[in-house]
Amino acid sequence: MPKPELLETFPNPHPTRDYEIQMECAEFTSLCPVGGIESDAEELKLLEGGAPDFGTIVITYVPNKLCLELKSLKLYLWSYRNDGIFYERAVNRILDDLNAACKPRFMEVTGDFNVRGGIKSVITARVEKVKR
Amino acid sequence: MPKPELLETFPNPHPTRDYEIQMECAEFTSLCPVGGIESDAEELKLLEGGAPDFGTIVITYVPNKLCLELKSLKLYLWSYRNDGIFYERAVNRILDDLNAACKPRFMEVTGDFNVRGGIKSVITARVEKVKR
Amino acid sequence: MPKPELLETFPNPHPTRDYEIQMECAEFTSLCPVGGIESDAEELKLLEGGAPDFGTIVITYVPNKLCLELKSLKLYLWSYRNDGIFYERAVNRILDDLNAACKPRFMEVTGDFNVRGGIKSVITARVEKVKR
Amino acid sequence: MPKPELLETFPNPHPTRDYEIQMECAEFTSLCPVGGIESDAEELKLLEGGAPDFGTIVITYVPNKLCLELKSLKLYLWSYRNDGIFYERAVNRILDDLNAACKPRFMEVTGDFNVRGGIKSVITARVEKVKR
Amino acid sequence: MPKPELLETFPNPHPTRDYEIQMECAEFTSLCPVGGIESDAEELKLLEGGAPDFGTIVITYVPNKLCLELKSLKLYLWSYRNDGIFYERAVNRILDDLNAACKPRFMEVTGDFNVRGGIKSVITARVEKVKR
Amino acid sequence: MPKPELLETFPNPHPTRDYEIQMECAEFTSLCPVGGIESDAEELKLLEGGAPDFGTIVITYVPNKLCLELKSLKLYLWSYRNDGIFYERAVNRILDDLNAACKPRFMEVTGDFNVRGGIKSVITARVEKVKR
Amino acid sequence: MPKPELLETFPNPHPTRDYEIQMECAEFTSLCPVGGIESDAEELKLLEGGAPDFGTIVITYVPNKLCLELKSLKLYLWSYRNDGIFYERAVNRILDDLNAACKPRFMEVTGDFNVRGGIKSVITARVEKVKR
Amino acid sequence: MPKPELLETFPNPHPTRDYEIQMECAEFTSLCPVGGIESDAEELKLLEGGAPDFGTIVITYVPNKLCLELKSLKLYLWSYRNDGIFYERAVNRILDDLNAACKPRFMEVTGDFNVRGGIKSVITARVEKVKR
Amino acid sequence: MPKPELLETFPNPHPTRDYEIQMECAEFTSLCPVGGIESDAEELKLLEGGAPDFGTIVITYVPNKLCLELKSLKLYLWSYRNDGIFYERAVNRILDDLNAACKPRFMEVTGDFNVRGGIKSVITARVEKVKR
Amino acid sequence: MPKPELLETFPNPHPTRDYEIQMECAEFTSLCPVGGIESDAEELKLLEGGAPDFGTIVITYVPNKLCLELKSLKLYLWSYRNDGIFYERAVNRILDDLNAACKPRFMEVTGDFNVRGGIKSVITARVEKVKR
Repeated sequence: MPKPELLETFPNPHPTRDYEIQMECAEFTSLCPVGGIESDAEELKLLEGGAPDFGTIVITYVPNKLCLELKSLKLYLWSYRNDGIFYERAVNRILDDLNAACKPRFMEVTGDFNVRGGIKSVITARVEKVKR
Repeated sequence: MPKPELLETFPNPHPTRDYEIQMECAEFTSLCPVGGIESDAEELKLLEGGAPDFGTIVITYVPNKLCLELKSLKLYLWSYRNDGIFYERAVNRILDDLNAACKPRFMEVTGDFNVRGGIKSVITARVEKVKR
Repeated sequence: MPKPELLETFPNPHPTRDYEIQMECAEFTSLCPVGGIESDAEELKLLEGGAPDFGTIVITYVPNKLCLELKSLKLYLWSYRNDGIFYERAVNRILDDLNAACKPRFMEVTGDFNVRGGIKSVITARVEKVKR
Repeated sequence: MPKPELLETFPNPHPTRDYEIQMECAEFTSLCPVGGIESDAEELKLLEGGAPDFGTIVITYVPNKLCLELKSLKLYLWSYRNDGIFYERAVNRILDDLNAACKPRFMEVTGDFNVRGGIKSVITARVEKVKR
Repeated sequence: MPKPELLETFPNPHPTRDYEIQMECAEFTSLCPVGGIESDAEELKLLEGGAPDFGTIVITYVPNKLCLELKSLKLYLWSYRNDGIFYERAVNRILDDLNAACKPRFMEVTGDFNVRGGIKSVITARVEKVKR
Repeated sequence: MPKPELLETFPNPHPTRDYEIQMECAEFTSLCPVGGIESDAEELKLLEGGAPDFGTIVITYVPNKLCLELKSLKLYLWSYRNDGIFYERAVNRILDDLNAACKPRFMEVTGDFNVRGGIKSVITARVEKVKR
Repeated sequence: MPKPELLETFPNPHPTRDYEIQMECAEFTSLCPVGGIESDAEELKLLEGGAPDFGTIVITYVPNKLCLELKSLKLYLWSYRNDGIFYERAVNRILDDLNAACKPRFMEVTGDFNVRGGIKSVITARVEKVKR
Repeated sequence: MPKPELLETFPNPHPTRDYEIQMECAEFTSLCPVGGIESDAEELKLLEGGAPDFGTIVITYVPNKLCLELKSLKLYLWSYRNDGIFYERAVNRILDDLNAACKPRFMEVTGDFNVRGGIKSVITARVEKVKR
Repeated sequence: MPKPELLETFPNPHPTRDYEIQMECAEFTSLCPVGGIESDAEELKLLEGGAPDFGTIVITYVPNKLCLELKSLKLYLWSYRNDGIFYERAVNRILDDLNAACKPRFMEVTGDFNVRGGIKSVITARVEKVKR
Repeated sequence: MPKPELLETFPNPHPTRDYEIQMECAEFTSLCPVGGIESDAEELKLLEGGAPDFGTIVITYVPNKLCLELKSLKLYLWSYRNDGIFYERAVNRILDDLNAACKPRFMEVTGDFNVRGGIKSVITARVEKVKR
């Protein structure tokens, strides 16, 4: 289960300036939910869980009063490891959790997922609070 | 024959937000129709079909109420394997079929085809339903 | 001599939609005209022609009623092989010939020529018929 | 069905010298046989055939009296398109067929197949007739 | 716990020839055991397990009577996902398990692990049964 | 301690023209402050300082009356070597110091920092004095 | 001493069309003037000149009535070889000289200079004569 | 017709030392002879010659008493431009001509030809005069 | 001062097999000693230390009874940060210290240092204890 | 004129061990002597010297009692800047000068020169003093 309660923040050291922070985690992994492109009933029984998915998560934001603490972000992303979740839902979920934690002026989350069934998927979602 | 009836969808998990989904299939193959750049009457008789074409199909869309199911998309693209079709028609056909299946807010299809006769072709078509 | 009469077209399979076709030929070659950067009187006598030039031609267009037939485009570009022509003139000439043949809504031609005298040249010209 | 009868040869233009010829076909495709890593009973019924495999075939040989004719090699490799065959068998089969056709002094065949189930496979087999 | 009992084999289709099979899995993940370079007592409590490790496993072998079945290899490698194991032990363990399953003429296993603490590790082990 | 007093300038040789100067230093290093993603109390005692951070600093500006002198910029960036500073603060600090030294028409500073805890960070801040 | 008198031009073959010409010289070299980032009094005495600088010059322009002749441009750029000049001045000087020679509708000059003192510099200047 | 009489040599400046010279010409072009993989009777009539072939020629040799003069080598390779010749014959012919011209201790010629019919060809031949 | 006393080891998990471990640290930094290629008396006074050097250290070894503990290796390499040392001495020193700590069957250390004065340096040293 | 008298050495810090030092200078430039591939009588008069050549010099050696001092090597290579010299002679000359200066156990010099007349040249020479 994703654990947004792991996320921590610290005060933005330069709140009067609009500036961008981008964090890229190339080691995101979760499980493919039942019915996903490569899951298979037989495999699920053998491994007591679905097939693993792998991808890169890129987070870009303009902080308002709070910045995301890097170590807690790492732990939060690790908490997807044994979670069965579709790509579309994962990217929107991460955006919602991070947005709730640090209330930025702008935030975009991209999930760039490895090839499955010969098809590579990239999902991008964003929220914009204030005019830039 | 392309089989749009193979396409399946699932409800968009975050329909209130405009977000982008990109899917890239680097293993698209079809047959060059009679009269194409490298087909040759003698070859057609030997192989009972035209010369093969290869390319990468990239689909980018903003879902409305429905998302394209990845496994069914894979099967749909496989259904071009023994079809004789020109590049221009293939890209427009894929766009029409996917658009009909999931009625997105925006969709773009690019076909990036391998060199034939020393020339590489890239075709890009798009539909835009709503202002973004 | 370039032979625009080699160019053939076929009806655009989707004339109601604006879409882009890009064709890239990495094997364009012509001859450097007398007085060009690396030609040399002595060489011209030995070879009965100027020094060869090499480059990549990229054609991007939005078809109107007609599409360029790929095999005839290949033959047209081959017809520059023993022609002495400056880069600037070649790119504008190709644009004029292709534009006359298929009367597109938009067309851009880029010639990306190999290093000569330590200098690489890229020439880009375009015509735009209708607002996009 | 692979068709070795399509293979043609021509006399080696320099038979007194040991020299190497390497031919690389990046557009090899066949079908995954029933029971393969990504085939699936339901898919087989829908598509009337197995899941497609893609790869690159590299052939390196030292000709003896005969050279492989390039166009016939292309047609031979196309003849695998609708054949269900395991990677290990395909590479050894191609080596056997080409070896029988041109009886070279040395031949090596490598099949470098696309990722399936997150795993990429490369198979290499060779025959050596004479000391080099 | 790694599950070597998942590994399956099939008869080598060309046992009279020495040929090489290379399989590369870029999606290997396990857990860093307690005391590893980036594990941390506090993190272990939060996540109920160690920090994740990621890497690429490359297996090269010359089959004797048996070939490794690709789908079962995928499942075997997935079985390390929730196992806390040092790099050196993982590579030697995989070599021992695969070697026991298919008794090849030669086998080499390389684990190329992602940067941890600013250091990238690559471990390579091999067994050689017969002279080649 | 960063030493902005090291920064020197020289008169802009072409003050009537808006033009851009970009300087990239791929050898920026500082120390991770206490509490950072990879620091560790035990390590701090052993090394009498925090864990090192590494990154690339890219500075882009449009000079007004003064240009930054390259050698003094190098010395200024070196002065971060034994300073414990968070990424967000470092980028904003460099921007403030350089802006104060040469009062440009526009300036942007990007810090592209190496992977820590599996996450790469890029921070970008800018000031704009005059309309361009 | 730079020699703008070496520059020659020829009539634009298509003056009624706005099109772009880009020329890239990857072999630009000049000398670092006294006081530059890596010059050193002792070295200057030994070599009777400053330390060498290396870079790539990229010129992009839209010709009006005249095009720059490629061979004369090569000679002009060579004339900087034994000239001691700062980066900022060199780029603006080249722009001024080329602009004076061919009076284009638009011209941009970029100097991308090699690392000195661990810092890479890129300078970009442009003139725009007419609205495009 | 290839013109070996264009080749010139100069005395090896260090004949007592075995050292290697490698020259790479990425702009080799010839014509595909009648019956080649992409030639076509109709095209031959239109263009008064076969389809063009393109490739890179790499020459490596250990000089004995003579070195190949670079400018004459360029002219010699240009002389293939309008010659219809198979790849295998071209590489062996170049090796024979260069070997006759400079009588080196060792020489190897590689022809790396562009994709034709989806297949890339590389031919390598060598002569060795003395033990190294 | 380098601190070899930081190095720790653990028992080799597979001592009966010869296998290779490679560890690459791309974040090695030390100081250039007085008299080095880019140090400068004036700079030394300003910064109270020499100019920084940067490089990548690659360690390859075949363990005997002991393996190098990764976290302690990281701390050992950090201990060069404020040490003035020539490249040749640093690589030999690291080899001596690691060799003394784990007494491997084979060990090689490469230091690949960044460009200084336009010159890049790579130093490689090795010890071999037993025949492999 | 090349100035070998600029070369300085320092005592090898580890003379009892055979280890390799590689130094790569990507900014080597000299002048093409009269009669070279791209020189031209008219240009020589305009520029009072020949056309410039550019290349990368790579020096690999195993030191005996002396190591080459990096700063003096830089000055020595700069001394070719205004010297007209053929590639073959330059590489052998550098090898002779460096070998005389530090009397290594082994030394190899490679000159990798930029494209001239469409041809790239790489020259490699070596001396070996003692058995390794």
